[in-house]
Amino acid sequence: MLKKVDHIGIAVHDLEETAKFYRDVLGMELQGVEEVATQKVKVAFFKIGETNIELVMPTSEDSPVAKYLQKKGEGIHHICYATDDIEKEIENVKAKGGRMIDETPRPGAHGARVAFIHPKSSKGVLTELSQKG
Amino acid sequence: MLKKVDHIGIAVHDLEETAKFYRDVLGMELQGVEEVATQKVKVAFFKIGETNIELVMPTSEDSPVAKYLQKKGEGIHHICYATDDIEKEIENVKAKGGRMIDETPRPGAHGARVAFIHPKSSKGVLTELSQKG
Repeated sequence: MLKKVDHIGIAVHDLEETAKFYRDVLGMELQGVEEVATQKVKVAFFKIGETNIELVMPTSEDSPVAKYLQKKGEGIHHICYATDDIEKEIENVKAKGGRMIDETPRPGAHGARVAFIHPKSSKGVLTELSQKG
Repeated sequence: MLKKVDHIGIAVHDLEETAKFYRDVLGMELQGVEEVATQKVKVAFFKIGETNIELVMPTSEDSPVAKYLQKKGEGIHHICYATDDIEKEIENVKAKGGRMIDETPRPGAHGARVAFIHPKSSKGVLTELSQKG
């Protein structure tokens, strides 16, 4: 069962430039900046209620997010939902006819284990499942 | 001050078709379906934690969402943040150099009063402010 929106991922060219909007204009609190080597991205997190806004900047031209930016430009990249049992959630998605990008969880930011659902199953919205580490 | 993500708006061609993913595959609870005449859209709401996923389908070809679908296809359309004082929030955004689409609040779904920040200010992410009715 999904518990909440863990974070909303936003693809950006320039972390610091976009951070100005969330921190200075909207007044959100910057929680931290972290590199996720497996995804070749640097992320900045802003807390808002029980959710985070996660700005995602590629650190390499072959990062999946770099390809997204080339194709679609800056904007909302994915929605991540929190779960207490990611293996069960993956099985559940597959049992209901959904297609996973990741059939087994892999390391995400903050030591979480994450898995992406395929956009073909989720009507064009890249959807991530995450279980806290 | 912004309190939480009120909802995430997702532009869709077919409400019922996309609802299957959120209701049947992800197991979210459908809260209701509502027409918002001012925006020429029909919306379906799914509760997840303190937030809603809002599927938005145009009811007319001149709906702003119909134009979005033509240009960008189905996908995440906007993020809406909840506030207790929308007039103050609008003034705050402008004072910090942000640009509003709506300088004064207008009617949204559920009797809320809403205002959109211009995407030029919010780095390509359509951002809505909302105060409960």
